[in-house]
Amino acid sequence: MPSPERLITLYGPGLLGGSLALAIQQRFPQTCLRLWARRPEAEDGIRARGITAEFTTDARAAAQGASLLILCTPVETMATLAAAIQSAPLAADAIVTDVGSVKASVVSALQPLLGHAFIGSHPMAGSEKTGIETARADLFEGAACLLTPVAETAAEPMQRLRDFWMAMGCHLLEMSPAEHDVKVARISHLPHFMAAVTTLAALRGDVSALKCAAGGFRDSTRVAAGDPGLWSGIGAANQQALISRLEEAQRTLAELLLILRSGQVAELQQFLAEAQALRKQL
Amino acid sequence: MPSPERLITLYGPGLLGGSLALAIQQRFPQTCLRLWARRPEAEDGIRARGITAEFTTDARAAAQGASLLILCTPVETMATLAAAIQSAPLAADAIVTDVGSVKASVVSALQPLLGHAFIGSHPMAGSEKTGIETARADLFEGAACLLTPVAETAAEPMQRLRDFWMAMGCHLLEMSPAEHDVKVARISHLPHFMAAVTTLAALRGDVSALKCAAGGFRDSTRVAAGDPGLWSGIGAANQQALISRLEEAQRTLAELLLILRSGQVAELQQFLAEAQALRKQL
Repeated sequence: MPSPERLITLYGPGLLGGSLALAIQQRFPQTCLRLWARRPEAEDGIRARGITAEFTTDARAAAQGASLLILCTPVETMATLAAAIQSAPLAADAIVTDVGSVKASVVSALQPLLGHAFIGSHPMAGSEKTGIETARADLFEGAACLLTPVAETAAEPMQRLRDFWMAMGCHLLEMSPAEHDVKVARISHLPHFMAAVTTLAALRGDVSALKCAAGGFRDSTRVAAGDPGLWSGIGAANQQALISRLEEAQRTLAELLLILRSGQVAELQQFLAEAQALRKQL
Repeated sequence: MPSPERLITLYGPGLLGGSLALAIQQRFPQTCLRLWARRPEAEDGIRARGITAEFTTDARAAAQGASLLILCTPVETMATLAAAIQSAPLAADAIVTDVGSVKASVVSALQPLLGHAFIGSHPMAGSEKTGIETARADLFEGAACLLTPVAETAAEPMQRLRDFWMAMGCHLLEMSPAEHDVKVARISHLPHFMAAVTTLAALRGDVSALKCAAGGFRDSTRVAAGDPGLWSGIGAANQQALISRLEEAQRTLAELLLILRSGQVAELQQFLAEAQALRKQL
Protein backbone atom coordinates (compact mmCIF):
# COMPACT_ATOMS: atom_id res chain seq x y z
CA MET A 1 0.00 0.00 0.00
CA PRO A 2 1.45 3.43 -0.93
CA SER A 3 1.66 6.06 1.78
CA PRO A 4 -1.54 8.07 1.77
CA GLU A 5 0.34 11.17 2.93
CA ARG A 6 3.37 13.14 1.81
CA LEU A 7 4.36 14.81 5.11
CA ILE A 8 2.74 14.18 8.48
CA THR A 9 3.22 16.55 11.42
CA LEU A 10 2.49 15.20 14.91
CA TYR A 11 1.99 17.73 17.71
CA GLY A 12 2.86 16.24 21.11
CA PRO A 13 5.15 13.17 21.18
CA GLY A 14 3.62 11.41 24.22
CA LEU A 15 2.08 7.93 24.35
CA LEU A 16 -0.31 8.59 21.45
CA GLY A 17 1.87 10.88 19.32
CA GLY A 18 4.91 8.68 19.89
CA SER A 19 2.96 5.54 18.98
CA LEU A 20 1.72 7.23 15.79
CA ALA A 21 5.30 8.20 14.92
CA LEU A 22 6.49 4.61 15.41
CA ALA A 23 3.56 3.19 13.42
CA ILE A 24 3.95 5.66 10.53
CA GLN A 25 7.71 5.11 10.36
CA GLN A 26 7.20 1.34 10.30
CA ARG A 27 4.39 1.26 7.73
CA PHE A 28 5.21 4.23 5.50
CA PRO A 29 8.98 4.72 5.44
CA GLN A 30 8.58 7.12 2.46
CA THR A 31 6.29 9.53 4.32
CA CYS A 32 8.13 12.49 5.81
CA LEU A 33 7.53 12.86 9.53
CA ARG A 34 7.78 16.05 11.59
CA LEU A 35 7.33 16.25 15.35
CA TRP A 36 6.53 19.28 17.42
CA ALA A 37 6.93 19.49 21.19
CA ARG A 38 6.65 22.40 23.60
CA ARG A 39 9.99 21.65 25.25
CA PRO A 40 13.24 21.18 23.28
CA GLU A 41 14.29 18.40 25.72
CA ALA A 42 11.55 16.23 24.18
CA GLU A 43 13.84 15.59 21.23
CA ASP A 44 16.04 13.29 23.36
CA GLY A 45 13.11 10.98 24.09
CA ILE A 46 12.17 10.90 20.41
CA ARG A 47 15.71 9.98 19.34
CA ALA A 48 15.94 7.39 22.13
CA ARG A 49 12.95 5.61 20.54
CA GLY A 50 14.68 5.52 17.15
CA ILE A 51 12.34 8.02 15.48
CA THR A 52 14.07 9.86 12.65
CA ALA A 53 11.56 12.71 12.21
CA GLU A 54 12.35 16.39 11.79
CA PHE A 55 11.90 18.09 15.19
CA THR A 56 10.79 21.63 16.08
CA THR A 57 9.31 23.60 18.98
CA ASP A 58 7.83 26.19 16.58
CA ALA A 59 4.16 25.25 16.10
CA ARG A 60 3.72 27.49 13.06
CA ALA A 61 6.83 26.20 11.27
CA ALA A 62 5.76 22.63 12.08
CA ALA A 63 2.60 23.10 10.02
CA GLN A 64 4.21 24.39 6.85
CA GLY A 65 3.62 22.19 3.82
CA ALA A 66 2.28 19.19 5.76
CA SER A 67 -0.49 17.13 4.18
CA LEU A 68 -1.74 15.71 7.52
CA LEU A 69 -1.41 17.41 10.91
CA ILE A 70 -2.41 15.51 14.05
CA LEU A 71 -2.83 17.16 17.46
CA CYS A 72 -1.81 14.66 20.16
CA THR A 73 -1.71 17.10 23.09
CA PRO A 74 -4.17 17.52 26.00
CA VAL A 75 -7.53 18.85 24.74
CA GLU A 76 -7.24 22.19 26.55
CA THR A 77 -4.09 23.09 24.57
CA MET A 78 -5.55 22.44 21.12
CA ALA A 79 -7.07 25.85 20.42
CA THR A 80 -3.70 27.59 20.96
CA LEU A 81 -1.99 25.15 18.59
CA ALA A 82 -4.76 25.59 16.02
CA ALA A 83 -4.22 29.36 16.07
CA ALA A 84 -0.52 28.84 15.28
CA ILE A 85 -1.39 26.37 12.51
CA GLN A 86 -3.90 28.81 11.02
CA SER A 87 -1.19 31.46 10.74
CA ALA A 88 1.16 29.11 8.85
CA PRO A 89 1.50 28.70 5.07
CA LEU A 90 -0.63 25.54 4.99
CA ALA A 91 -0.55 23.18 1.99
CA ALA A 92 -3.69 23.40 -0.15
CA ASP A 93 -4.54 19.77 0.61
CA ALA A 94 -3.76 19.95 4.34
CA ILE A 95 -6.01 18.04 6.75
CA VAL A 96 -5.86 18.74 10.48
CA THR A 97 -7.12 16.18 12.98
CA ASP A 98 -6.59 15.34 16.65
CA VAL A 99 -6.72 12.36 18.99
CA GLY A 100 -8.58 14.05 21.85
CA SER A 101 -11.00 12.19 24.12
CA VAL A 102 -13.72 14.82 23.67
CA LYS A 103 -15.04 16.15 20.40
CA ALA A 104 -17.84 18.75 20.68
CA SER A 105 -15.70 21.36 22.48
CA VAL A 106 -12.63 20.60 20.31
CA VAL A 107 -14.56 20.79 17.03
CA SER A 108 -16.33 24.00 18.02
CA ALA A 109 -13.03 25.60 19.07
CA LEU A 110 -11.02 24.46 16.04
CA GLN A 111 -13.43 24.76 13.11
CA PRO A 112 -13.71 28.56 13.32
CA LEU A 113 -9.89 28.67 13.08
CA LEU A 114 -9.23 25.91 10.56
CA GLY A 115 -12.49 25.64 8.66
CA HIS A 116 -13.21 22.35 6.98
CA ALA A 117 -9.57 21.37 6.94
CA PHE A 118 -10.29 20.15 10.48
CA ILE A 119 -12.00 16.78 11.12
CA GLY A 120 -12.02 15.31 14.63
CA SER A 121 -10.69 11.81 15.36
CA HIS A 122 -10.61 9.75 18.55
CA PRO A 123 -8.71 6.47 18.42
CA MET A 124 -9.87 4.38 21.42
CA ALA A 125 -6.38 3.41 22.49
CA GLY A 126 -4.25 4.49 25.40
CA SER A 127 -3.05 3.38 28.75
CA GLU A 128 -2.79 4.58 32.34
CA LYS A 129 0.86 5.18 31.45
CA THR A 130 2.08 8.32 29.71
CA GLY A 131 5.14 9.52 27.79
CA ILE A 132 7.02 8.44 24.70
CA GLU A 133 8.82 5.71 26.70
CA THR A 134 5.52 3.77 26.72
CA ALA A 135 4.72 4.33 23.01
CA ARG A 136 4.24 1.24 20.81
CA ALA A 137 3.92 0.90 17.03
CA ASP A 138 0.96 -1.48 17.50
CA LEU A 139 -1.01 0.67 19.97
CA PHE A 140 -3.81 1.31 17.44
CA GLU A 141 -4.06 -2.26 16.09
CA GLY A 142 -7.64 -3.47 16.50
CA ALA A 143 -8.82 -0.27 18.20
CA ALA A 144 -12.00 1.56 17.28
CA CYS A 145 -11.35 5.05 15.88
CA LEU A 146 -14.29 7.45 16.09
CA LEU A 147 -14.41 10.11 13.36
CA THR A 148 -16.67 13.15 13.75
CA PRO A 149 -17.28 14.82 10.40
CA VAL A 150 -19.78 17.66 10.24
CA ALA A 151 -22.22 18.59 7.45
CA GLU A 152 -19.60 20.76 5.71
CA THR A 153 -16.83 18.12 5.74
CA ALA A 154 -15.71 17.40 2.16
CA ALA A 155 -15.56 13.87 0.78
CA GLU A 156 -11.88 13.81 -0.31
CA PRO A 157 -10.21 14.76 3.02
CA MET A 158 -12.68 12.53 4.86
CA GLN A 159 -11.62 9.55 2.74
CA ARG A 160 -7.93 10.33 3.24
CA LEU A 161 -8.49 10.46 7.01
CA ARG A 162 -10.30 7.10 6.91
CA ASP A 163 -7.44 5.59 4.89
CA PHE A 164 -4.90 6.88 7.39
CA TRP A 165 -6.59 5.41 10.48
CA MET A 166 -7.30 2.11 8.74
CA ALA A 167 -3.60 1.93 7.85
CA MET A 168 -2.86 2.37 11.58
CA GLY A 169 -4.95 -0.78 12.22
CA CYS A 170 -8.17 0.87 13.43
CA HIS A 171 -11.74 0.05 12.56
CA LEU A 172 -13.84 3.15 12.04
CA LEU A 173 -17.07 4.52 13.44
CA GLU A 174 -18.50 7.84 12.29
CA MET A 175 -20.81 10.06 14.31
CA SER A 176 -21.44 13.70 15.18
CA PRO A 177 -19.20 15.39 17.78
CA ALA A 178 -22.15 15.56 20.22
CA GLU A 179 -23.01 11.89 19.79
CA HIS A 180 -19.33 11.04 20.27
CA ASP A 181 -19.21 12.81 23.61
CA VAL A 182 -22.32 11.03 24.92
CA LYS A 183 -21.13 7.56 23.83
CA VAL A 184 -17.60 8.07 25.12
CA ALA A 185 -18.91 9.40 28.44
CA ARG A 186 -20.64 6.00 28.77
CA ILE A 187 -17.79 3.74 27.73
CA SER A 188 -14.63 5.61 28.71
CA HIS A 189 -15.09 8.68 30.92
CA LEU A 190 -17.60 7.06 33.32
CA PRO A 191 -15.43 3.95 33.89
CA HIS A 192 -12.38 6.15 34.41
CA PHE A 193 -13.98 8.34 37.08
CA MET A 194 -15.71 5.33 38.69
CA ALA A 195 -12.31 3.62 39.02
CA ALA A 196 -11.13 6.69 40.96
CA VAL A 197 -14.28 6.59 43.15
CA THR A 198 -13.79 2.87 43.84
CA THR A 199 -10.11 3.36 44.70
CA LEU A 200 -10.91 6.17 47.13
CA ALA A 201 -13.87 4.36 48.74
CA ALA A 202 -11.74 1.21 49.11
CA LEU A 203 -8.54 2.70 50.49
CA ARG A 204 -9.19 6.04 52.19
CA GLY A 205 -8.94 5.19 55.86
CA ASP A 206 -7.16 1.84 55.41
CA VAL A 207 -4.55 1.60 52.69
CA SER A 208 -3.29 -1.63 54.33
CA ALA A 209 -6.22 -3.43 52.67
CA LEU A 210 -4.03 -3.33 49.52
CA LYS A 211 -2.06 -6.26 50.93
CA CYS A 212 -5.11 -8.44 50.30
CA ALA A 213 -5.64 -7.23 46.72
CA ALA A 214 -6.06 -9.69 43.87
CA GLY A 215 -6.75 -9.40 40.13
CA GLY A 216 -10.26 -7.99 40.63
CA PHE A 217 -9.02 -4.86 42.39
CA ARG A 218 -6.00 -4.56 40.10
CA ASP A 219 -8.04 -4.58 36.90
CA SER A 220 -11.09 -2.65 38.03
CA THR A 221 -8.98 0.27 39.29
CA ARG A 222 -6.11 0.18 36.75
CA VAL A 223 -7.14 3.37 34.95
CA ALA A 224 -7.27 5.27 38.28
CA ALA A 225 -3.46 5.34 38.00
CA GLY A 226 -3.83 7.53 34.87
CA ASP A 227 -2.57 11.12 34.61
CA PRO A 228 -4.76 13.44 36.78
CA GLY A 229 -3.87 16.49 34.66
CA LEU A 230 -4.96 14.83 31.43
CA TRP A 231 -8.16 13.40 32.89
CA SER A 232 -9.28 16.50 34.76
CA GLY A 233 -9.09 18.28 31.38
CA ILE A 234 -11.17 15.55 29.76
CA GLY A 235 -13.75 15.62 32.59
CA ALA A 236 -14.06 19.41 32.37
CA ALA A 237 -14.37 19.33 28.57
CA ASN A 238 -17.14 16.71 28.66
CA GLN A 239 -18.75 18.02 31.83
CA GLN A 240 -22.43 17.67 30.93
CA ALA A 241 -22.32 14.13 29.51
CA LEU A 242 -20.07 12.94 32.33
CA ILE A 243 -22.29 14.45 35.02
CA SER A 244 -25.29 12.77 33.41
CA ARG A 245 -23.56 9.34 33.50
CA LEU A 246 -22.31 9.79 37.07
CA GLU A 247 -25.85 10.71 38.12
CA GLU A 248 -27.01 7.47 36.49
CA ALA A 249 -24.31 5.65 38.50
CA GLN A 250 -25.66 7.36 41.64
CA ARG A 251 -29.17 6.07 40.89
CA THR A 252 -27.84 2.58 40.15
CA LEU A 253 -25.84 2.56 43.39
CA ALA A 254 -28.95 3.63 45.33
CA GLU A 255 -30.88 0.79 43.66
CA LEU A 256 -28.16 -1.69 44.73
CA LEU A 257 -28.12 -0.40 48.32
CA LEU A 258 -31.90 -0.72 48.54
CA ILE A 259 -31.67 -4.36 47.44
CA LEU A 260 -28.79 -5.14 49.81
CA ARG A 261 -30.53 -3.53 52.81
CA SER A 262 -33.71 -5.50 52.07
CA GLY A 263 -31.73 -8.75 52.20
CA GLN A 264 -33.43 -10.07 49.03
CA VAL A 265 -30.75 -12.40 47.63
CA ALA A 266 -32.83 -13.25 44.54
CA GLU A 267 -33.09 -9.54 43.65
CA LEU A 268 -29.38 -9.10 44.24
CA GLN A 269 -28.70 -11.99 41.89
CA GLN A 270 -30.97 -10.40 39.28
CA PHE A 271 -29.13 -7.06 39.57
CA LEU A 272 -25.79 -8.82 39.00
CA ALA A 273 -27.23 -10.96 36.20
CA GLU A 274 -28.34 -7.86 34.29
CA ALA A 275 -24.81 -6.41 34.55
CA GLN A 276 -23.30 -9.76 33.55
CA ALA A 277 -25.53 -10.04 30.46
CA LEU A 278 -24.56 -6.52 29.32
CA ARG A 279 -20.84 -7.08 29.99
CA LYS A 280 -20.87 -10.37 28.10
CA GLN A 281 -21.92 -8.54 24.93
CA LEU A 282 -18.41 -7.12 24.73
CA MET B 1 9.49 -31.02 50.29
CA PRO B 2 7.44 -33.98 51.66
CA SER B 3 3.66 -33.79 51.39
CA PRO B 4 2.27 -32.15 54.48
CA GLU B 5 -0.92 -34.18 54.19
CA ARG B 6 -1.85 -37.87 53.86
CA LEU B 7 -5.28 -37.54 52.23
CA ILE B 8 -6.91 -34.32 51.07
CA THR B 9 -10.63 -34.10 50.32
CA LEU B 10 -11.84 -31.23 48.15
CA TYR B 11 -15.55 -30.38 48.19
CA GLY B 12 -16.65 -28.71 44.97
CA PRO B 13 -14.46 -29.16 41.87
CA GLY B 14 -15.02 -25.74 40.24
CA LEU B 15 -12.38 -23.13 39.40
CA LEU B 16 -10.90 -23.06 42.92
CA GLY B 17 -11.37 -26.73 43.86
CA GLY B 18 -10.19 -27.89 40.45
CA SER B 19 -7.14 -25.62 40.61
CA LEU B 20 -6.29 -27.00 44.07
CA ALA B 21 -6.62 -30.56 42.73
CA LEU B 22 -4.25 -29.78 39.84
CA ALA B 23 -1.75 -28.02 42.13
CA ILE B 24 -1.79 -30.81 44.77
CA GLN B 25 -1.41 -33.52 42.14
CA GLN B 26 1.51 -31.66 40.56
CA ARG B 27 3.35 -30.82 43.79
CA PHE B 28 2.49 -33.78 46.03
CA PRO B 29 1.99 -36.86 43.85
CA GLN B 30 2.11 -39.06 46.99
CA THR B 31 -0.83 -37.32 48.69
CA CYS B 32 -4.13 -39.13 48.17
CA LEU B 33 -6.77 -36.90 46.67
CA ARG B 34 -10.54 -37.28 47.00
CA LEU B 35 -13.13 -35.08 45.28
CA TRP B 36 -16.75 -34.60 46.19
CA ALA B 37 -19.35 -33.02 43.92
CA ARG B 38 -23.12 -32.73 44.25
CA ARG B 39 -23.76 -34.12 40.76
CA PRO B 40 -22.28 -37.40 39.50
CA GLU B 41 -21.77 -35.84 36.03
CA ALA B 42 -19.02 -33.68 37.57
CA GLU B 43 -16.72 -36.71 37.40
CA ASP B 44 -16.43 -36.35 33.60
CA GLY B 45 -15.03 -32.82 33.91
CA ILE B 46 -12.53 -34.00 36.54
CA ARG B 47 -11.29 -36.85 34.35
CA ALA B 48 -11.12 -34.55 31.32
CA ARG B 49 -8.62 -32.40 33.25
CA GLY B 50 -6.43 -35.43 34.00
CA ILE B 51 -7.16 -35.52 37.72
CA THR B 52 -6.82 -39.05 39.12
CA ALA B 53 -8.59 -38.49 42.45
CA GLU B 54 -11.16 -40.79 44.07
CA PHE B 55 -14.63 -39.34 43.33
CA THR B 56 -17.86 -39.46 45.36
CA THR B 57 -21.16 -37.62 45.71
CA ASP B 58 -21.51 -38.77 49.36
CA ALA B 59 -20.35 -35.86 51.53
CA ARG B 60 -20.09 -38.00 54.66
CA ALA B 61 -18.06 -40.77 52.98
CA ALA B 62 -15.83 -38.12 51.41
CA ALA B 63 -14.71 -36.97 54.87
CA GLN B 64 -13.70 -40.37 56.26
CA GLY B 65 -10.04 -40.59 57.20
CA ALA B 66 -8.96 -37.36 55.45
CA SER B 67 -6.24 -35.28 57.11
CA LEU B 68 -7.28 -32.04 55.31
CA LEU B 69 -10.77 -31.21 54.06
CA ILE B 70 -11.31 -28.07 51.96
CA LEU B 71 -14.74 -26.65 51.18
CA CYS B 72 -14.64 -25.04 47.72
CA THR B 73 -18.40 -24.55 47.28
CA PRO B 74 -20.48 -21.34 47.45
CA VAL B 75 -20.54 -19.98 51.02
CA GLU B 76 -24.25 -20.58 51.54
CA THR B 77 -23.81 -24.36 51.05
CA MET B 78 -21.01 -24.80 53.60
CA ALA B 79 -23.11 -25.35 56.73
CA THR B 80 -24.91 -28.30 55.12
CA LEU B 81 -21.60 -29.86 54.08
CA ALA B 82 -20.16 -29.27 57.55
CA ALA B 83 -23.09 -31.15 59.11
CA ALA B 84 -22.33 -34.15 56.86
CA ILE B 85 -18.63 -33.95 57.71
CA GLN B 86 -19.41 -33.77 61.44
CA SER B 87 -21.38 -37.04 61.19
CA ALA B 88 -18.46 -38.88 59.51
CA PRO B 89 -15.72 -40.93 61.20
CA LEU B 90 -13.17 -38.10 61.03
CA ALA B 91 -9.45 -38.76 61.47
CA ALA B 92 -8.08 -37.57 64.83
CA ASP B 93 -5.77 -35.10 63.08
CA ALA B 94 -8.36 -33.83 60.56
CA ILE B 95 -8.36 -30.12 59.71
CA VAL B 96 -11.31 -28.59 57.88
CA THR B 97 -10.93 -25.32 55.99
CA ASP B 98 -12.68 -23.48 53.15
CA VAL B 99 -11.91 -20.98 50.39
CA GLY B 100 -14.98 -18.78 50.89
CA SER B 101 -14.91 -15.04 50.21
CA VAL B 102 -16.53 -14.23 53.58
CA LYS B 103 -15.35 -15.45 56.94
CA ALA B 104 -17.39 -14.21 59.95
CA SER B 105 -20.62 -15.96 58.89
CA VAL B 106 -18.78 -19.09 57.71
CA VAL B 107 -16.72 -19.40 60.91
CA SER B 108 -19.71 -18.81 63.15
CA ALA B 109 -21.77 -21.39 61.23
CA LEU B 110 -19.04 -24.05 61.03
CA GLN B 111 -17.26 -23.86 64.38
CA PRO B 112 -20.26 -25.04 66.41
CA LEU B 113 -20.38 -28.10 64.13
CA LEU B 114 -16.68 -28.84 63.69
CA GLY B 115 -15.09 -27.23 66.75
CA HIS B 116 -11.48 -26.26 66.47
CA ALA B 117 -10.86 -28.64 63.62
CA PHE B 118 -12.19 -25.77 61.48
CA ILE B 119 -9.98 -22.83 60.50
CA GLY B 120 -11.12 -20.38 57.80
CA SER B 121 -9.00 -19.63 54.72
CA HIS B 122 -9.47 -17.21 51.84
CA PRO B 123 -6.99 -17.43 48.99
CA MET B 124 -7.30 -14.17 47.00
CA ALA B 125 -7.40 -15.89 43.62
CA GLY B 126 -10.18 -16.44 41.15
CA SER B 127 -11.56 -15.15 37.92
CA GLU B 128 -14.78 -13.98 36.38
CA LYS B 129 -14.84 -17.45 34.80
CA THR B 130 -16.15 -20.52 36.58
CA GLY B 131 -15.95 -24.29 36.29
CA ILE B 132 -13.21 -26.89 36.26
CA GLU B 133 -12.50 -26.13 32.56
CA THR B 134 -10.91 -22.85 33.70
CA ALA B 135 -8.89 -24.40 36.58
CA ARG B 136 -5.09 -23.95 36.54
CA ALA B 137 -2.36 -25.51 38.69
CA ASP B 138 -0.73 -22.07 39.13
CA LEU B 139 -3.89 -20.17 40.14
CA PHE B 140 -2.62 -19.62 43.69
CA GLU B 141 0.99 -18.70 42.79
CA GLY B 142 1.81 -15.31 44.27
CA ALA B 143 -1.69 -14.79 45.73
CA ALA B 144 -2.36 -13.58 49.26
CA CYS B 145 -4.14 -16.18 51.41
CA LEU B 146 -5.97 -14.79 54.43
CA LEU B 147 -6.24 -17.18 57.40
CA THR B 148 -8.69 -16.44 60.19
CA PRO B 149 -7.77 -18.40 63.33
CA VAL B 150 -9.75 -17.73 66.52
CA ALA B 151 -8.55 -17.69 70.12
CA GLU B 152 -9.19 -21.45 70.51
CA THR B 153 -7.31 -22.48 67.33
CA ALA B 154 -4.50 -24.89 68.25
CA ALA B 155 -0.92 -24.32 67.11
CA GLU B 156 -0.33 -27.65 65.32
CA PRO B 157 -3.27 -27.57 62.85
CA MET B 158 -2.65 -23.86 62.29
CA GLN B 159 0.94 -24.55 61.27
CA ARG B 160 -0.13 -27.42 58.97
CA LEU B 161 -2.63 -25.09 57.29
CA ARG B 162 0.06 -22.43 56.80
CA ASP B 163 2.39 -25.06 55.31
CA PHE B 164 -0.32 -26.20 52.92
CA TRP B 165 -1.12 -22.75 51.52
CA MET B 166 2.54 -21.79 51.26
CA ALA B 167 3.12 -24.98 49.27
CA MET B 168 0.34 -23.80 46.92
CA GLY B 169 2.41 -20.63 46.31
CA CYS B 170 0.50 -18.21 48.56
CA HIS B 171 1.85 -15.61 50.96
CA LEU B 172 -0.09 -15.53 54.21
CA LEU B 173 -1.91 -12.89 56.22
CA GLU B 174 -3.64 -13.73 59.51
CA MET B 175 -6.53 -11.80 61.01
CA SER B 176 -9.84 -12.31 62.79
CA PRO B 177 -12.90 -13.32 60.75
CA ALA B 178 -14.49 -9.90 61.39
CA GLU B 179 -11.37 -8.00 60.31
CA HIS B 180 -11.19 -10.21 57.20
CA ASP B 181 -14.70 -9.27 56.16
CA VAL B 182 -14.06 -5.54 56.54
CA LYS B 183 -10.76 -5.65 54.61
CA VAL B 184 -12.14 -7.84 51.84
CA ALA B 185 -15.24 -5.66 51.51
CA ARG B 186 -12.80 -2.83 50.69
CA ILE B 187 -10.53 -4.64 48.28
CA SER B 188 -12.72 -7.27 46.62
CA HIS B 189 -16.46 -7.00 47.28
CA LEU B 190 -16.69 -3.21 46.73
CA PRO B 191 -14.77 -3.33 43.39
CA HIS B 192 -16.92 -6.25 42.26
CA PHE B 193 -20.25 -4.54 42.92
CA MET B 194 -18.93 -1.20 41.60
CA ALA B 195 -17.99 -2.93 38.34
CA ALA B 196 -21.64 -4.04 38.05
CA VAL B 197 -22.85 -0.49 38.82
CA THR B 198 -20.49 0.96 36.20
CA THR B 199 -21.58 -1.58 33.59
CA LEU B 200 -25.26 -0.82 34.19
CA ALA B 201 -24.78 2.96 34.26
CA ALA B 202 -22.73 2.78 31.05
CA LEU B 203 -24.90 0.47 28.97
CA ARG B 204 -28.51 0.52 30.17
CA GLY B 205 -30.26 2.58 27.51
CA ASP B 206 -27.49 2.29 24.88
CA VAL B 207 -25.67 -0.99 24.60
CA SER B 208 -24.34 0.16 21.19
CA ALA B 209 -21.75 2.25 23.09
CA LEU B 210 -19.88 -1.07 23.49
CA LYS B 211 -18.66 -0.69 19.90
CA CYS B 212 -16.46 2.17 21.11
CA ALA B 213 -15.04 0.22 24.08
CA ALA B 214 -11.30 0.08 24.70
CA GLY B 215 -9.06 -1.43 27.39
CA GLY B 216 -10.30 0.92 30.12
CA PHE B 217 -13.87 -0.34 29.94
CA ARG B 218 -12.74 -3.93 29.42
CA ASP B 219 -10.56 -4.03 32.53
CA SER B 220 -12.63 -1.89 34.86
CA THR B 221 -15.78 -3.99 34.29
CA ARG B 222 -14.18 -7.45 33.80
CA VAL B 223 -15.40 -8.85 37.13
CA ALA B 224 -18.98 -7.78 36.33
CA ALA B 225 -19.02 -10.85 34.05
CA GLY B 226 -18.66 -13.05 37.17
CA ASP B 227 -21.26 -15.58 38.34
CA PRO B 228 -24.33 -13.70 39.74
CA GLY B 229 -25.32 -16.68 41.91
CA LEU B 230 -21.93 -16.88 43.59
CA TRP B 231 -21.62 -13.12 44.10
CA SER B 232 -25.16 -12.53 45.37
CA GLY B 233 -24.34 -15.12 48.05
CA ILE B 234 -21.11 -13.30 48.92
CA GLY B 235 -22.90 -9.92 49.05
CA ALA B 236 -25.61 -11.28 51.31
CA ALA B 237 -23.08 -12.98 53.60
CA ASN B 238 -21.01 -9.80 54.00
CA GLN B 239 -24.00 -7.45 53.93
CA GLN B 240 -22.99 -4.97 56.65
CA ALA B 241 -19.39 -4.39 55.56
CA LEU B 242 -20.40 -4.19 51.91
CA ILE B 243 -23.20 -1.68 52.62
CA SER B 244 -20.76 0.42 54.61
CA ARG B 245 -18.28 0.51 51.67
CA LEU B 246 -20.98 1.22 49.08
CA GLU B 247 -22.21 4.10 51.27
CA GLU B 248 -18.65 5.41 51.25
CA ALA B 249 -18.67 5.12 47.45
CA GLN B 250 -21.95 7.08 47.44
CA ARG B 251 -20.33 9.88 49.47
CA THR B 252 -17.25 9.87 47.20
CA LEU B 253 -19.43 10.02 44.10
CA ALA B 254 -21.37 12.97 45.59
CA GLU B 255 -18.03 14.70 46.30
CA LEU B 256 -16.97 14.17 42.67
CA LEU B 257 -20.27 15.47 41.29
CA LEU B 258 -20.01 18.59 43.45
CA ILE B 259 -16.53 19.29 42.04
CA LEU B 260 -17.62 18.62 38.44
CA ARG B 261 -20.70 20.86 38.72
CA SER B 262 -18.59 23.68 40.18
CA GLY B 263 -16.30 23.52 37.14
CA GLN B 264 -13.14 23.71 39.32
CA VAL B 265 -10.59 21.87 37.18
CA ALA B 266 -7.85 22.19 39.82
CA GLU B 267 -10.07 20.47 42.40
CA LEU B 268 -10.96 17.77 39.89
CA GLN B 269 -7.27 17.18 39.28
CA GLN B 270 -6.68 16.94 43.05
CA PHE B 271 -9.48 14.37 43.40
CA LEU B 272 -7.92 12.24 40.65
CA ALA B 273 -4.42 12.74 42.05
CA GLU B 274 -5.50 11.36 45.44
CA ALA B 275 -6.91 8.24 43.76
CA GLN B 276 -3.79 7.89 41.62
CA ALA B 277 -1.48 8.11 44.65
CA LEU B 278 -3.45 5.39 46.48
CA ARG B 279 -3.61 3.13 43.40
CA LYS B 280 0.11 3.49 42.79
CA GLN B 281 0.82 1.94 46.19
CA LEU B 282 -0.29 -1.41 44.77
